[in-house]
Amino acid sequence: MTDLNLLSAVEAARAMRVGEISAEDLARDCLNRIKDIDDTVQAWISLNPDYVMEQARQTDEHRRTGAPIGPLHGLPVAIKDIFDTLDYPTQYGTPLHAGRKTTSDATVVAMLRQAGAIIMGKTVTTEFAVLSPTSKTTNPHDPARTPGGSSSGSAAAVAAGMVPLALGTQTNGSVIRPASYCGVVGYKPTYGLVSRHRVLRTSRNLDQIGMFARTIEDAAMVGEAIIGFDAKDADTLLAPRPDLLAKTSEAPPMPPRYAYIKGPAWSQCDDDTHGAFAELTEAMGDRVEEVDLGSVYEEVLNWHRMVMDADMAKNLSDDYSRGADQISPVLCEMIERGRKVHAVDYNLAVDRIAMFAKAFTDMFEEFDAIITPAATGVAPLGLESTGNPACATLWTFAGMPAMTLPVLQGKSGMPMGVQMVAARGDDARLFRNASWFSTYMEGLADEA
Amino acid sequence: MTDLNLLSAVEAARAMRVGEISAEDLARDCLNRIKDIDDTVQAWISLNPDYVMEQARQTDEHRRTGAPIGPLHGLPVAIKDIFDTLDYPTQYGTPLHAGRKTTSDATVVAMLRQAGAIIMGKTVTTEFAVLSPTSKTTNPHDPARTPGGSSSGSAAAVAAGMVPLALGTQTNGSVIRPASYCGVVGYKPTYGLVSRHRVLRTSRNLDQIGMFARTIEDAAMVGEAIIGFDAKDADTLLAPRPDLLAKTSEAPPMPPRYAYIKGPAWSQCDDDTHGAFAELTEAMGDRVEEVDLGSVYEEVLNWHRMVMDADMAKNLSDDYSRGADQISPVLCEMIERGRKVHAVDYNLAVDRIAMFAKAFTDMFEEFDAIITPAATGVAPLGLESTGNPACATLWTFAGMPAMTLPVLQGKSGMPMGVQMVAARGDDARLFRNASWFSTYMEGLADEA
Repeated sequence: MTDLNLLSAVEAARAMRVGEISAEDLARDCLNRIKDIDDTVQAWISLNPDYVMEQARQTDEHRRTGAPIGPLHGLPVAIKDIFDTLDYPTQYGTPLHAGRKTTSDATVVAMLRQAGAIIMGKTVTTEFAVLSPTSKTTNPHDPARTPGGSSSGSAAAVAAGMVPLALGTQTNGSVIRPASYCGVVGYKPTYGLVSRHRVLRTSRNLDQIGMFARTIEDAAMVGEAIIGFDAKDADTLLAPRPDLLAKTSEAPPMPPRYAYIKGPAWSQCDDDTHGAFAELTEAMGDRVEEVDLGSVYEEVLNWHRMVMDADMAKNLSDDYSRGADQISPVLCEMIERGRKVHAVDYNLAVDRIAMFAKAFTDMFEEFDAIITPAATGVAPLGLESTGNPACATLWTFAGMPAMTLPVLQGKSGMPMGVQMVAARGDDARLFRNASWFSTYMEGLADEA
Repeated sequence: MTDLNLLSAVEAARAMRVGEISAEDLARDCLNRIKDIDDTVQAWISLNPDYVMEQARQTDEHRRTGAPIGPLHGLPVAIKDIFDTLDYPTQYGTPLHAGRKTTSDATVVAMLRQAGAIIMGKTVTTEFAVLSPTSKTTNPHDPARTPGGSSSGSAAAVAAGMVPLALGTQTNGSVIRPASYCGVVGYKPTYGLVSRHRVLRTSRNLDQIGMFARTIEDAAMVGEAIIGFDAKDADTLLAPRPDLLAKTSEAPPMPPRYAYIKGPAWSQCDDDTHGAFAELTEAMGDRVEEVDLGSVYEEVLNWHRMVMDADMAKNLSDDYSRGADQISPVLCEMIERGRKVHAVDYNLAVDRIAMFAKAFTDMFEEFDAIITPAATGVAPLGLESTGNPACATLWTFAGMPAMTLPVLQGKSGMPMGVQMVAARGDDARLFRNASWFSTYMEGLADEA
């Protein structure tokens, strides 16, 4: 086999399990792909090919002993450079933490290793994982365009076939947006399902771990590997692990019905997006019904900003005190704004997180999932901005599980994601409905 | 038997279980005691003798059927007037909620009923359970003095022999202080052990349920009845119920050693208190060692105030908007101060709650419990103030379990409590050490 780097994670895992390919073979093809195109894509900030091959050899040796192997056995995973890793530095995308070394892995990085994964390297993040214009990474579909951010390198690495899987984080739209821009699957689990221990904290209320893959099954597989209670993240939930992968291949009891929600960012979406979603929902006929959220949700962009600004002002205060001159003006402005937020307003906004999550519960008795744009348009030209996160804001704020599927295209031919959202805790159902939708879309395309 | 109202809860429960007395007998003696002295003490805001006797008759009938009876079978419990009760109005100590009726019991009131308790009536609270001077209740030991607050009526009712048990709440020092002033046992469990669902919320971070009793065993018995996870209070913990009553009668594996902590409020304590604690700790010899907390804890009074002010400003904002003219100047000032707190400072203070709770963990490897003053002095003369809560602030802030034991006296002859504190979650150990200490103190008194 050649181009093993293009195998899905599920395919590669199966092939390694039965010995058709080795972890070394897979790692080598991934490294070759990186060598070929990373001068253009620039997805990586720390990558040591020797160390990667060493992990792969150890993985292969482990399998040869006949010992049980993990579900991610031999699969290379890219890690956004805000997760602590024992081997690679963790530099938060800022000169203020250049060369920062840590004494232990983030909980989820340790979980990946336990599942047999190979920690490929650290991917480019924007400064402190916020939306500032310092990502050097380009979009694999068009190097003149941004891959989105803040998980820029993780999204691009998966899209470019450098790795099958990558971890990112989302405090606003930092997984869903780059996944949409790069034409891959992005998945942000329910708030509280994945530990954030030893991951850069920008906002305890909003920070959420997410992942990138090229198929829904792959996202399910890595999701199952990192979901779990962690006493070191007080917000993780003591809940049974959802059976994402099993549900992905399970047919729904009846054909799902989707709620089409334009959402509070609709006015910020461009004509391209308006047109694509009008076509999509028309083609879906009875399978979809538009639901108007009402005006209370329009304020969510402001509430989210208030919480995020104030939390960042607190969590980045040491960095700001010692090196404001090395922080971008955009981020300085956010911190300054955050310092002025009053606790009363902040707490009223924080209270709305739980209110919103609860308010959507009823909707999911009538509908199986929400369909909404993943971004305000396709990846913008230029690297000065990583684009507009507003389409993800409400769902991040409410802590609901969200996924983007690369099923649409803009007029430019660039990928455009459809975001699917479920009720808090209903991640497995989200995967089942996303899988059904994906097959259904293939059917629509065949008809057309 | 006469004066059944003076029986401890444990004694009364035993006597009812074996049929020596009936719930009607006990309720009648409690009501008679109230009739005799409540013109002076003024502990009650809502009390319906017919309804109390009706509950007692039903309780007796239930026992006569031979059905299993609850651990609090037939015991009258007083409820601070900020817990919702189906039968009595819940008026929060303010004209703004005069006559307020509710559609269901607070979780803990429902738990009391399930345990067989009789809901005696609602006791006087200061305005919105804050330390403002609107409590009409007097101290049963001296009607010229305050009983403390905000749980004024609950503490006084137990001290005056009107009921064996009462519920209160503590956001700063509203259980420990009035218990100390009134010469009864006060117990505030670990933050998160007791549900606050349908109890007036002033601060999610600080509000904690507490209880009053005349013996340690009684406090253990009612504590066990109301501790428990409640999905309706997101901060309650999924933890095994501590076996308070069993531990109370269990000898420690070896004689306990106590850490004597003067604490951040020591400079506010009067000479009477300084003298009493010097004597106490000298008499205890090797059983106690003074521990200096260091300067970081001195700031806790400010952090607590910042969190409490800001939380109250949010939670009482509707009341403030519609009726500031009916709110006391002291509380208006707190709300105004709270409105000005910045989210960044607020969140830094909130973060310190968990830091503090954790910082004390090591101490409890060396020491069995902390001993510290329960209040800055005995109950002050006059009803204009309910006294200074500062001795309870640190332990409330850190969410640690605290108890006050009525073992000392001031020069005036008024009762003075010794506060005992344990690590978060170590409530059972606190009871064991409190019980040991109580017996030990009797021994010291006999020697003297």
